[in-house]
Amino acid sequence: MLVIVTYDVSTETREGRRRLRRVAKLCEGVGQRVQKSVFECQVDLLRFEELERRLLEEINKEEDNLRIYRITEPTRLHVREYGCFRALDFEGPLLA
Amino acid sequence: MLVIVTYDVSTETREGRRRLRRVAKLCEGVGQRVQKSVFECQVDLLRFEELERRLLEEINKEEDNLRIYRITEPTRLHVREYGCFRALDFEGPLLA
Repeated sequence: MLVIVTYDVSTETREGRRRLRRVAKLCEGVGQRVQKSVFECQVDLLRFEELERRLLEEINKEEDNLRIYRITEPTRLHVREYGCFRALDFEGPLLA
Repeated sequence: MLVIVTYDVSTETREGRRRLRRVAKLCEGVGQRVQKSVFECQVDLLRFEELERRLLEEINKEEDNLRIYRITEPTRLHVREYGCFRALDFEGPLLA
């Protein structure tokens, strides 16, 4: 199944940037980063539950917001993308 | 139906910040802003098509990335949220 992970954290702090990097790394292990804080992950139920558990270990629940959306197959009916894809910028200087 | 709009734009430029504000305003007319660049919008098909058309008028396809995910009902089965909700910060100083 396809799950969308969106993550909101202040990257003004070193700790926030560190958490974003760790969340990104977890998600990229099972999917791809499509926006600065949006990840599309192809997982089966077992890997989904593991991903969710590990994400919850990383985030700071007092300061961050994590949302996980499950997209129903066929995903081509439920996902639309417009504009450019700037993957190279994700680990560069802060972009927003 | 519930659609998730995620929008990636550099808010380092005045123009980028302006576009993000305008995208947010459009989405907030039919839903709510749940993260800095993530909006959950409850729409019927007619309003969805209008929202999409208006979003495409606002974004800069050379510089921004816009994704729209359609969530299947019942949404409680397909949406999970963790952590805090920092709506007050969205229009404040840049947060990421």
